[in-house]
Amino acid sequence: MDSAVEMKEPLSKNRIKWLQSLTKKKVRDEEGLFFAEGVKLVDDLLPAFECHSIYATEDYFSSRGKVAALEGGYVVTKEELKRLSAQCAPQSVFAVFKKRDAGFNPVVLDGKLSLALDTVQDPGNLGTIIRIADWFGIEHVLCSKETVEVYNPKVVQATMGALARVSVHYVDLVEVLKETSLPVYGTFLEGEDIYGEALSAEGVIVMGNEGNGVSEEVKKLVSRKLYIPNFPKGRETSESLNVAVATAITCAEFRRRTY
Amino acid sequence: MDSAVEMKEPLSKNRIKWLQSLTKKKVRDEEGLFFAEGVKLVDDLLPAFECHSIYATEDYFSSRGKVAALEGGYVVTKEELKRLSAQCAPQSVFAVFKKRDAGFNPVVLDGKLSLALDTVQDPGNLGTIIRIADWFGIEHVLCSKETVEVYNPKVVQATMGALARVSVHYVDLVEVLKETSLPVYGTFLEGEDIYGEALSAEGVIVMGNEGNGVSEEVKKLVSRKLYIPNFPKGRETSESLNVAVATAITCAEFRRRTY
Repeated sequence: MDSAVEMKEPLSKNRIKWLQSLTKKKVRDEEGLFFAEGVKLVDDLLPAFECHSIYATEDYFSSRGKVAALEGGYVVTKEELKRLSAQCAPQSVFAVFKKRDAGFNPVVLDGKLSLALDTVQDPGNLGTIIRIADWFGIEHVLCSKETVEVYNPKVVQATMGALARVSVHYVDLVEVLKETSLPVYGTFLEGEDIYGEALSAEGVIVMGNEGNGVSEEVKKLVSRKLYIPNFPKGRETSESLNVAVATAITCAEFRRRTY
Repeated sequence: MDSAVEMKEPLSKNRIKWLQSLTKKKVRDEEGLFFAEGVKLVDDLLPAFECHSIYATEDYFSSRGKVAALEGGYVVTKEELKRLSAQCAPQSVFAVFKKRDAGFNPVVLDGKLSLALDTVQDPGNLGTIIRIADWFGIEHVLCSKETVEVYNPKVVQATMGALARVSVHYVDLVEVLKETSLPVYGTFLEGEDIYGEALSAEGVIVMGNEGNGVSEEVKKLVSRKLYIPNFPKGRETSESLNVAVATAITCAEFRRRTY
């Protein structure tokens, strides 16, 4: 074993219980912490978030000198990791990070393309949207207070590490959109064909809830209503696209115009 | 109660057990059946699949005269539906359908744009891809034999009814792609920028596995390798897009060229 690793006493029952309790939002809120599992995900998050403690196999530590030297490093067995894991197949590393909460200043949106999520509820969708934002160089994702928590373990896993590079802000969406001088876009069944519209390099793209779409209050603040046409146009089809899918097609089209 | 509904004896323990067993692939295969839950989904599937039996609340039947007259209609309580449901929030209808297995003739692909999935494993991804296919008028989705089963309850739910309008064929993908004279497209990190390439109105778009992408054997048969550029081009970012997201952006771009 790497001598830099503090080989603490085996994980106590209390610590295992506490780590397991981080699956609960209430506990994450109180502690200001969240967790992530898996080598790639943890590697991506380590430079971006302050690490509280890290629980991993000897193999993991010996292959990662720097991480092994961390104060909160615990060498654990596969069996212990299995008890901690929120997933079916336990990973070789489980890490606890401190949440980032920098506060939100609307000037960070100036000159940029950003996303605003109005009550997206599915953790997989939020995680996938953060991954899309990262791919398309969107630095800021605004979330209504009713949007699923970004530190939900399912969201964290679904971001595939993109969380390290995208800032997610929980805000009063109505207030922010009222105040902004940026164009506000959104996709609606009654919108204008996105391929026929001028799209600006800066602005906010609003995406809505899985079942109910964008709320009436937010909809009033969308100055540019867009529509992703189906094929052939006007054909009977699925009523809508999944919110992450619609986000992806919209972001791709905005970026295609400005590459 | 609508008199057209056969009010059979309350669901027997054996029938409940049998219905629950349809969550298992082995049982679905043996019986040639699958199930779907929820008013909208069942409404979408009823015209497209032969219904074996339907279990719903009195309210559901009384609001749907035709369905109530079905021979296999069972009025059940919310509590009974809860026992049947594979979901957290039980729906007011649970329906069992006969699988469709028409066999596959490659001529159905001629003149059309189709999708081919090389070992997509996540049920949510397959369901979302079928929904994307429906939106973009793609009638046929080919799946390698290793791709997750389309009648998996999570896939069926995620299609949001699109399964009624898209034909899914499990085939020897290598063989089909070897035989076809259609252009075969795929997205790869080393592909050509999709926005700079000519895209045809007919062809097959191959999408790969979540972790491993397209297999080497299939990759050799992809004549047109494409790449969805990130933004700004060449920037460090997530390593890849989710497979359903990449499918959506690719299909949208193909259709944009031919609207």
